[in-house]
Amino acid sequence: MPLVQEGDDIAALAIEAAAAQGTPFLDGDAIVVAQRIVSKAEGRVLPLDEFAPSPFALEWSEAWDKDPRQTEAVLRESVRIVRQMKGVLITETRHGFVCANSGVDASNVGGTDLISLLPVDPDASARAFRDTLRERLGIEAAAIVSDTFGRPWRTGQTNIAIGLAGLRPLRPLEGLPDLDGRIMRVSTPCPADEIAGAAGLSMPKSEGVPVVIVRGYPYERGEGTAREIVRSFEDDLFP
Amino acid sequence: MPLVQEGDDIAALAIEAAAAQGTPFLDGDAIVVAQRIVSKAEGRVLPLDEFAPSPFALEWSEAWDKDPRQTEAVLRESVRIVRQMKGVLITETRHGFVCANSGVDASNVGGTDLISLLPVDPDASARAFRDTLRERLGIEAAAIVSDTFGRPWRTGQTNIAIGLAGLRPLRPLEGLPDLDGRIMRVSTPCPADEIAGAAGLSMPKSEGVPVVIVRGYPYERGEGTAREIVRSFEDDLFP
Repeated sequence: MPLVQEGDDIAALAIEAAAAQGTPFLDGDAIVVAQRIVSKAEGRVLPLDEFAPSPFALEWSEAWDKDPRQTEAVLRESVRIVRQMKGVLITETRHGFVCANSGVDASNVGGTDLISLLPVDPDASARAFRDTLRERLGIEAAAIVSDTFGRPWRTGQTNIAIGLAGLRPLRPLEGLPDLDGRIMRVSTPCPADEIAGAAGLSMPKSEGVPVVIVRGYPYERGEGTAREIVRSFEDDLFP
Repeated sequence: MPLVQEGDDIAALAIEAAAAQGTPFLDGDAIVVAQRIVSKAEGRVLPLDEFAPSPFALEWSEAWDKDPRQTEAVLRESVRIVRQMKGVLITETRHGFVCANSGVDASNVGGTDLISLLPVDPDASARAFRDTLRERLGIEAAAIVSDTFGRPWRTGQTNIAIGLAGLRPLRPLEGLPDLDGRIMRVSTPCPADEIAGAAGLSMPKSEGVPVVIVRGYPYERGEGTAREIVRSFEDDLFP
């Protein structure tokens, strides 16, 4: 893949790159796209100077040795601060994701005074990608926009799905019999996040692999969204 | 794989099954083993009747329509109740894992009056599996014992690593340059969980696939443990 610029059609670039390396996209593929190139193409990589820090952003950044402009961006991207401790801001984004720093990232953005914000609507980004594959190649593939999130209780980050199209993200097994014929009560695997995690193995941050094909997994096709994976505030035990 | 019984050598069974299906284990494989067969082989599948409920277990189970014997097992496997709401017990297990019901599971255990508890030391279970592959096949492979955990803020469960041997679970990138030459501050992917998640795609609970080969991923070899993935209580923002 070439380095992505604002306005680029990343699906078109990915189609070319996949064909050029001898692994063209196929019907049934799940194609995982790194958030950072989606954000770049969609104009969501912005100069830090566009974020004039509020007094809150200034105070927090001073206390914890952060760039106050970046803190300001984190706050503007959030609808709620979930935790604010030890220099870490865990926020709920406008999409409903709970993550560190609202997904605002200063790595691999193409410059040192730029930051990347999450796409405005990552499901729409995934749909556009999927639609382009459908139109240009005549294939039905799933598209997943993926980002790297931390987790409570476990160190290290894993890739998860923040936007998707062409698959159902969850696979409810409740009500199905297990191997003993016992009806399962609570069991809903999330293949979308497992596909994103699998792709994450091939796209570590320091390397330039922004698109990964996950081939051969029989995901359930359908018109799903990553919003379905967001647990509602009311249902959550960790508000 | 045949159905596993207490005392079985699951590595030996897996070696046979892999060879029989024409995909023998190879040097560099990451082999993911479902917790339930590890627990079965290690005698951690027990009759519910062994768990005489305490008054606490009785009261909670009555209020939320749970089997009080199973609740008792959950409590005995825990060192701390992290959340207790709406019929859900989120506990910290003796291993330090934070999960629903201490990992106690009544699905796919081989009978309707049995429950499966997590292995006493899943890292040791993984090491035994890895050692058997080394001895019998002369290969260096990684072994991951995996279970299906829920997450806060996101619906659906994903497979994660609860025990491992032969690989380093985390890949710290801090201090390395990103694509722009900017030194990364907080970036530690957790390939062990991503490998387990990838394998989870091939081992949904209602089907009988307890061992999955993840081949071709250049994990960092080493003497890691899943304990390294457990965030310490002091460092956690969601105690």
